Amino acid sequence: MLHANVERLKASLVDMAKIGATPGGGVTRTALSDEDREGRNQIVAWLQAANLAVRWDDLGNIYGRLEGSDPSLAPVLMGSHADSVPGGGRFDGIFGVMTALEVARSIRDLGITPRRSIEVVDWTNEEGARFEPAMACSGAVAGRFTPEYIYSRLDRDGKVFVEELVRIGYKGDAANRPQAIQAYFEPHIEQGPVLEAEGIPIGVVTGILGLKWMNVTLHGVQQHAGPSPMRSRHDAMVTAGRIIAGLRDMALEYPDPAVATVGRIKATPGIINQIPGEVVLSADMRHWTGQGHEEMGTKALALIKRLAAEEGVKADVDVFWTCPPIAFPDSMVGLIERTVRDLGVPNRRIVSGAGHDAQYIHEIAPTGMIFVRTIGGKSHCETEDIHWEDAQAAADLLLNAALELAR
Amino acid sequence: MLHANVERLKASLVDMAKIGATPGGGVTRTALSDEDREGRNQIVAWLQAANLAVRWDDLGNIYGRLEGSDPSLAPVLMGSHADSVPGGGRFDGIFGVMTALEVARSIRDLGITPRRSIEVVDWTNEEGARFEPAMACSGAVAGRFTPEYIYSRLDRDGKVFVEELVRIGYKGDAANRPQAIQAYFEPHIEQGPVLEAEGIPIGVVTGILGLKWMNVTLHGVQQHAGPSPMRSRHDAMVTAGRIIAGLRDMALEYPDPAVATVGRIKATPGIINQIPGEVVLSADMRHWTGQGHEEMGTKALALIKRLAAEEGVKADVDVFWTCPPIAFPDSMVGLIERTVRDLGVPNRRIVSGAGHDAQYIHEIAPTGMIFVRTIGGKSHCETEDIHWEDAQAAADLLLNAALELAR
Repeated sequence: MLHANVERLKASLVDMAKIGATPGGGVTRTALSDEDREGRNQIVAWLQAANLAVRWDDLGNIYGRLEGSDPSLAPVLMGSHADSVPGGGRFDGIFGVMTALEVARSIRDLGITPRRSIEVVDWTNEEGARFEPAMACSGAVAGRFTPEYIYSRLDRDGKVFVEELVRIGYKGDAANRPQAIQAYFEPHIEQGPVLEAEGIPIGVVTGILGLKWMNVTLHGVQQHAGPSPMRSRHDAMVTAGRIIAGLRDMALEYPDPAVATVGRIKATPGIINQIPGEVVLSADMRHWTGQGHEEMGTKALALIKRLAAEEGVKADVDVFWTCPPIAFPDSMVGLIERTVRDLGVPNRRIVSGAGHDAQYIHEIAPTGMIFVRTIGGKSHCETEDIHWEDAQAAADLLLNAALELAR
Repeated sequence: MLHANVERLKASLVDMAKIGATPGGGVTRTALSDEDREGRNQIVAWLQAANLAVRWDDLGNIYGRLEGSDPSLAPVLMGSHADSVPGGGRFDGIFGVMTALEVARSIRDLGITPRRSIEVVDWTNEEGARFEPAMACSGAVAGRFTPEYIYSRLDRDGKVFVEELVRIGYKGDAANRPQAIQAYFEPHIEQGPVLEAEGIPIGVVTGILGLKWMNVTLHGVQQHAGPSPMRSRHDAMVTAGRIIAGLRDMALEYPDPAVATVGRIKATPGIINQIPGEVVLSADMRHWTGQGHEEMGTKALALIKRLAAEEGVKADVDVFWTCPPIAFPDSMVGLIERTVRDLGVPNRRIVSGAGHDAQYIHEIAPTGMIFVRTIGGKSHCETEDIHWEDAQAAADLLLNAALELAR
């Protein structure tokens, strides 16, 4: 088995963490920001230093190509994204880009020229934290979104995606998109507590949970908190409270890794002595089977309608994003699993709870994901962290698996 | 029985509603704003036109004095406040000031010179919507707050109370505060649905609910919504949901008019796919007896601690305002009740659920309140409304009751 240079990988991750570093030890490197530009410039410099041919496409996705002996063959693609959420961590996304870079460097070091080309990729705007939707530019490459749609997205300050893309100097040519992809590998931190709880460094990802995102708007009657007897109320906040608790209880009826989460809530007018007339809350529900995914949505809707009716409150439910569960092909899951076993690294199959660029690229190419254990299961926060031995395992795994397909 | 001129009262209320009028039919006339200045200028002009001696004190409380035949006697005070919440209604507060003004005008019309002086008052910053605390300037007159404390209050934009008071031209002399008060009457809209539900125009207010205001800060563990199994969570939002529902259920165990309300909630980071690490919510609890008031607070605290412990979440509870229930003196309640009966107007005793300037003035003078029915129980909103027949009843009641004490 071949081995990558984890010290070099670590050094690159440490250097990248300086770009957009936050006082609390994390990074803020949102898509198309000055920090994203600085990060891209660094990535491009490293790709070039590794003697890869660098290009970027009309969406700013950056590719570094290690030319194979038969350039006419579809390349093996590997990578992830360099953007972060605000106040995010040092590993989410960038770990996959840096591990892919390290694998390319190691192939160079080893003097190997694979038959197929191997490309490192940094997908633009995976997080969707600045411009919605998330995974915008892998989605565009997969044909899910037109460039015009992505270009017209606005951030909260009204800045336009395409203008920001041009501003940072990364609007390239559509012809630079991959024409065909033999296979896509994405290494990523788990972002959850499962591997750590079981003392396992590597997760072989079998698929991604299906997801439903909804906004629930509760229209009650705004009244003064003091003079409104309890039984006369149509309280949007009480309804929201019962829905939040009810969705959690509903999710508990399913086995892991099914989940339901309320992350966002806004009460109007939102003052201490007014019964809110309106409460808007989000619900995020995920399941690993198509049937479970639909059933959770249906049950949630029924629950919300029933509780709202009990409170005399009107509920408008807008299911604004549905993403069915996906299963990565057995060929990719099997290859990753065999390779990690051959490396002697403890591993388990796992379903990804989070969406990743892999879920769109899956639609156009055989795709596999490699998870590394996340300390404390923490992600999207400044204290996101990993064990360097796990990074070694992930890089070795990617190196051997990618070469297996490229030879 | 004497009668006031409800047409004139109506005209004045309609004119006042133009000052700070909102497109939806309400008013935004927050304390010490340009609109408050315009409202005050109008009130002063009307007081002077009614041949009252106008002055304002160091807190901007405005007084219009109808001199009695024995000016050495403590005056009978009557009024309320002219400030509103943002997007508030045309009656909350200003109804009491305009009714008191109308009573003074009617006394002039009737050619009566009472023995005691009668004073109309407009208290500054009752709502506390711009500068906390609420009822700031009646509280200062009652000795609850020093002028220095009130002067230093900041609004959300960092503007200073005293600078705004000077800016609008209403910083007067502390010597202009009332030196002694024989009695204080405050007419006000009910702001609740009780009178309307029973078809009764006038409420004889026996007291004001005791109140506890708390902020509950729930410290959970922020995690990504996807990869975090339900049983591994310490979800501050779920805890908040259960507390909101639990406080409502607790309040339902008490008879009316005991109430508990959650009006404000903030989840951090407040994004759809993150389990919030922190949720802050408010709780407002009210009861009419001292014992019930304390018991509700104790029960709420125990409930919050128990639910937080069940979720593995830390709860910090800050009871930042406690106001014991008050009972107006029998002399005032009895006078108001006798007078409204003599007028032949249907009435009932009622406890005020909301705080009013009357609650501070109660500490320094015999105080009574008169409620008028509120259409739909709505207040602090643009659709706040009353029946003009009820305004007639309230004005007649105040005219006769005030003269009774002033003769």
